Amino acid sequence: MSRDWFVEEYPDHAGLMLEVRRRLYDAKSPYQRIEIVETVAFGRLLALDGCVMLTERDEYVYHEMLAHPALCAHPAPERVLVIGGGDGGTVREVVRHAAVREVHLVEIDRMVVEASRAYLPTVSAGLSDPRVSVRYADGFDHLEGHPAAYDVILVDSIDPVGESAKLFTSPFYERVQRALRPGGLAVFETESPLYHGDVLRRVTRSLKALFPHVATYLAAIPTYPSGLWSFTFVSQAIDPLTIKPRFAGGLPEGLKYFTPSLYHAAFVLPRFVEELVQR
Amino acid sequence: MSRDWFVEEYPDHAGLMLEVRRRLYDAKSPYQRIEIVETVAFGRLLALDGCVMLTERDEYVYHEMLAHPALCAHPAPERVLVIGGGDGGTVREVVRHAAVREVHLVEIDRMVVEASRAYLPTVSAGLSDPRVSVRYADGFDHLEGHPAAYDVILVDSIDPVGESAKLFTSPFYERVQRALRPGGLAVFETESPLYHGDVLRRVTRSLKALFPHVATYLAAIPTYPSGLWSFTFVSQAIDPLTIKPRFAGGLPEGLKYFTPSLYHAAFVLPRFVEELVQR
Repeated sequence: MSRDWFVEEYPDHAGLMLEVRRRLYDAKSPYQRIEIVETVAFGRLLALDGCVMLTERDEYVYHEMLAHPALCAHPAPERVLVIGGGDGGTVREVVRHAAVREVHLVEIDRMVVEASRAYLPTVSAGLSDPRVSVRYADGFDHLEGHPAAYDVILVDSIDPVGESAKLFTSPFYERVQRALRPGGLAVFETESPLYHGDVLRRVTRSLKALFPHVATYLAAIPTYPSGLWSFTFVSQAIDPLTIKPRFAGGLPEGLKYFTPSLYHAAFVLPRFVEELVQR
Repeated sequence: MSRDWFVEEYPDHAGLMLEVRRRLYDAKSPYQRIEIVETVAFGRLLALDGCVMLTERDEYVYHEMLAHPALCAHPAPERVLVIGGGDGGTVREVVRHAAVREVHLVEIDRMVVEASRAYLPTVSAGLSDPRVSVRYADGFDHLEGHPAAYDVILVDSIDPVGESAKLFTSPFYERVQRALRPGGLAVFETESPLYHGDVLRRVTRSLKALFPHVATYLAAIPTYPSGLWSFTFVSQAIDPLTIKPRFAGGLPEGLKYFTPSLYHAAFVLPRFVEELVQR
């Protein structure tokens, strides 16, 4: 019997193959193609327009590293906005923090949330937390209507193509800035420094024009292009490199990637990444 | 025209694909199959028995991170042994340190060295340094004949199968221990903590039985399985976590990955890796 592979071809004439046991879901929403497959060794996999968004085996890295640095850096993260991330993984990590009182998840594509609830229960679990409300809207528009509303904004976008391309532009960053409460902070996923170095460089430059504190950190995500992923932390008030993050009593149990020591180490960049974000 | 891909299938029902422009060399040595291909986006690629050893685009990460932490941690790394690594990349990094007086490269497979000299000039360049002598021998046997001979030993092995399986055993580690001069240290490449966690766990346990100082560090290597790679540092005398490494005047120019700050950050492990090496 011939083997079935999920293949994601990366822009750099490279690709990742994951062997598939069973194809569970494949639908076209108004925004994108949504696929869920059961892999042989990585659990279930969610792909949007052919790009791996998560596998059950390694999704903890991305979701922990998008949520916890921000939530530990903010002294009182009560109101949190997640833009994108309809699978619910980021929200699941956010609601592990007792300080959080209210979470808005703004996802443009209702079908992503529905597919995740149906097929990825361990990922979407957090969406049922009573503090969470899910809004099916454009992140751009949502920000416009919520000035000075959030302590923490997490931008869980996908690659800067199609609908999500505008989440990688200065007008979007300005709206994020205005939607933050005083002392607030935001984290953006900013792609692979190896395969999308130009994105990281451009985004960093745009953010530095708006925020006094902009810092890149990294995490190892085996099923994302190149396996190395960048996140960019921004704030008017909080310098992530010099603060002492709120860990005592504030760090959830049972994390698999994030640790207090890793908080600081993740901001220490290999030289080629330093050069991308400094110029 | 159909596209040509170099495909490495990993044990975990996953694989990496790199598009090939031209196949340059394919030979069977007494030890292994040696392939060199020109990829579309990663420069030339060397594979042994179908496993990617290096691509010109990202080999700097592996070679810098195998060589420089050890050479910066030792106060006077005069005599250095590299076991394996016939491509020459590790030696190239070693000879960038002015303190180094003599380097022995012990490679069992002469054809790897010859292929690298012929097709990978930027990698094999260091082999021509006058301080370097190349010996075609079994690393195991070589160590036996060189008691208390080296300040730094770098074990640039391949995956623990076939000939190189014995480089992942306690008898080999004992020979490394005896071949170190007082105050010496060794670094072993110890595979992916994600795909080969059992190897890292077993190696760490064996090394802890022999050395008081054993510490794991990580680097991001996109063309190795999972993209995250581990190295294990051992010494009778030097604790890599508390020393102040010799950077002033000691760090070569032009590095692309390693930095003084990264020296310490690379030893800070994600929780799942901490758990692998602590138990």
